[in-house]
Amino acid sequence: MNSNIPSIGLPRIVIIGCGFAGLKLVKKINTKNYQVVLLDKNNYHTFQPLMYQVASSSLEPDSIVYPIRKVFKGKKNFHFRMTDVHHVNVDTKEVDSDLGIIKYDHLVIATGAVTNFFGLKNIEKFGYTMKSLRESLDLRSLIIQNFEKALSITDLSVRDEYMNFVIVGGGATGIELAGALAELKKNILPKDYPDLDIRQMQIHIIEASDKVLPSMSEKASSQSYKFLKKLGVNIWLNTFVKDYDGSTVISSKTDFKARTLIWSAGVKGLPVAGLEKSLNKSNRIITDQFNKVIGQENVFAIGDVASIESEMDGKGHPMLASIAGQQGHTLGVNFNAMAKGKELKPFNYNDRGTMATIGRNKAVVDLPFFKFSGGIAWLVWMFLHLMLLVDFRNRLIVFMNWSWSYFNYDKGLRLIIRKTPSKKEKEEY
Amino acid sequence: MNSNIPSIGLPRIVIIGCGFAGLKLVKKINTKNYQVVLLDKNNYHTFQPLMYQVASSSLEPDSIVYPIRKVFKGKKNFHFRMTDVHHVNVDTKEVDSDLGIIKYDHLVIATGAVTNFFGLKNIEKFGYTMKSLRESLDLRSLIIQNFEKALSITDLSVRDEYMNFVIVGGGATGIELAGALAELKKNILPKDYPDLDIRQMQIHIIEASDKVLPSMSEKASSQSYKFLKKLGVNIWLNTFVKDYDGSTVISSKTDFKARTLIWSAGVKGLPVAGLEKSLNKSNRIITDQFNKVIGQENVFAIGDVASIESEMDGKGHPMLASIAGQQGHTLGVNFNAMAKGKELKPFNYNDRGTMATIGRNKAVVDLPFFKFSGGIAWLVWMFLHLMLLVDFRNRLIVFMNWSWSYFNYDKGLRLIIRKTPSKKEKEEY
Repeated sequence: MNSNIPSIGLPRIVIIGCGFAGLKLVKKINTKNYQVVLLDKNNYHTFQPLMYQVASSSLEPDSIVYPIRKVFKGKKNFHFRMTDVHHVNVDTKEVDSDLGIIKYDHLVIATGAVTNFFGLKNIEKFGYTMKSLRESLDLRSLIIQNFEKALSITDLSVRDEYMNFVIVGGGATGIELAGALAELKKNILPKDYPDLDIRQMQIHIIEASDKVLPSMSEKASSQSYKFLKKLGVNIWLNTFVKDYDGSTVISSKTDFKARTLIWSAGVKGLPVAGLEKSLNKSNRIITDQFNKVIGQENVFAIGDVASIESEMDGKGHPMLASIAGQQGHTLGVNFNAMAKGKELKPFNYNDRGTMATIGRNKAVVDLPFFKFSGGIAWLVWMFLHLMLLVDFRNRLIVFMNWSWSYFNYDKGLRLIIRKTPSKKEKEEY
Repeated sequence: MNSNIPSIGLPRIVIIGCGFAGLKLVKKINTKNYQVVLLDKNNYHTFQPLMYQVASSSLEPDSIVYPIRKVFKGKKNFHFRMTDVHHVNVDTKEVDSDLGIIKYDHLVIATGAVTNFFGLKNIEKFGYTMKSLRESLDLRSLIIQNFEKALSITDLSVRDEYMNFVIVGGGATGIELAGALAELKKNILPKDYPDLDIRQMQIHIIEASDKVLPSMSEKASSQSYKFLKKLGVNIWLNTFVKDYDGSTVISSKTDFKARTLIWSAGVKGLPVAGLEKSLNKSNRIITDQFNKVIGQENVFAIGDVASIESEMDGKGHPMLASIAGQQGHTLGVNFNAMAKGKELKPFNYNDRGTMATIGRNKAVVDLPFFKFSGGIAWLVWMFLHLMLLVDFRNRLIVFMNWSWSYFNYDKGLRLIIRKTPSKKEKEEY
């Protein structure tokens, strides 16, 4: 099989992955000097920071993703192919994919990260995650299915299992989802399910460290703790999850009855096969300051999958969209410099701040020299996320949805378009 | 298992299906006099007339469906349950469902219609349909997947298979989809796939009768034929499909190379098991003028699944949303009359007209005393479909999408959220 991409006499850069890193890289590369081939398993770029809003019925998929072909419409010497990549052969400079062999002169790995269950097999088996659009849609369906199911359960302890939600991991993803579920409980579910006593619904966050949002400032941690408490979320700090059978969560503190456990307690790199020698303990590809993979020629890695050896005591930068975007940008600048024989620029992370939102008027913002929270932080969070969306159309739709929700105390439509098979029930029957 | 729906001392009406018939019926029933239990396999009502716009990437699912719980929010003595119904026992007055046994005093079957392949096994095996939201989303994914795939196929005759589309059935569904595909070919695909020669894409309509839109007026048929021709659609009249192996369509006239055959050539009733004695040849439940099932007490049938014995030479009314809605409304009025011991009203169809759209400025409208086509017809079509949508939010989203498309010569995002396994390839490997 042939990949059917024409050779045009320019050096070819093959980029695997169109997350924030891949997207910014392609935007920056001057295709007068290079032919660019971008590969991704999806035909769209995903704005991951808003994934939890898809899971909690606030936004529809088309609000937070954008077709890759539309992003790069009209770009010359550029070819996008939707395909699964099997492995990379650095000796022959080839990528083996569903579409066949694709030759490269320069290769960039920007494949991102994947959920890390740290070997907890039963959690992997019965738990749910939120790392892709499909997983987020599955989780959404499951949440609604749980309430539909709860209606016909007379045994209150079994009903508990369906109405309780355990979120493992108190980082940004975990607390944002917990806040969204708490708002569903407060404003939406009592209207949708008048036959149920919604007070029965309990939302738990289980966090191994001594605070939520451990990677943000003390102020952000304590404020978001207060916000979550105010919304009725149960927070279990210094607590480890030990096991899960699909209906009972066993932790180091107590047990929880819940059919739905959402795992947001860890990620690891998702490298391409063929680069095993260059991985660190978190499965990330080790690179130098120029994003070049250590021990390889013409192979680069950027974004969540990459780790610059010399940074953060050898652990590499945190896995953040902003860092991925900056790495993509810098590497693009360096490719353009290479073409002109100019000097390369080492990557230098410019920390513009981090933020998280818990709910209406409840957000926390850490800027390098100023930390704040509450209503203004929430407005800032919304404004910046709107501006970060890839396209005007996305921005408009998200803005309309948020405005609608704000004034109506409502969310998007709670649709179960495809039923998610319950992992526990699959086991039972 | 127990359905867990409380008895409240009022006669209980159980309604199966929340299409246009079920929806209008529930809206009309005065729940001071009845307890209403509505069952549907989905948690939403679907606006079927716009389904082809989901398949052709023009609209997202949340534009054309609306959650049943939201439609009836706050309605007293009303219970919605999302469940699959297995069968009906008219002797014990019970409905057997996934949630257990549900007792009724009055039962209404409003389960609609399903695709009729008329025994063509291979078409059922390899063809695609557009009768549900899931099927429409699958078809959308498949259409985009085909083009992604075509990019890496060098054999032009195999590429043909991926770029050709055969639509069987020249009724409203078939021609509306053909028109939408033709507009994709004209305005969208050349931009999305600069590496492909889009002129290779061929759209065929195969129709057994001697005109398209056979159920509409002569004028509508001939105009829509002209519109389709203008858009480059190939129309094969007086032509029958004989067989299909997933890549070659064998018809009474010629063969077509196409991996995608969309079957819109027939529907039949989708009754509930337990009413076999009351079915006609099209699988529809035979009723009297009051929508009461012949030979049954307290069992009614409305909408596409029902056929009033005395109408249209025993064939019953055509399967149209407008008729279903009117039947639901009339039956609701009759239930309210029954509660007060008043006389019942026989169903009488008020034909307000039919219409179909082929594309931008191309629609046909048949009113009882006036038939017209073109730009004005298109505006009328759009306005009426907007007004028929169940909710203001739907209307706003659809209006915005249509306006956007109109001014940008664009469609919605072409997203493959879940890949549709190709039925042919599944066979091959």
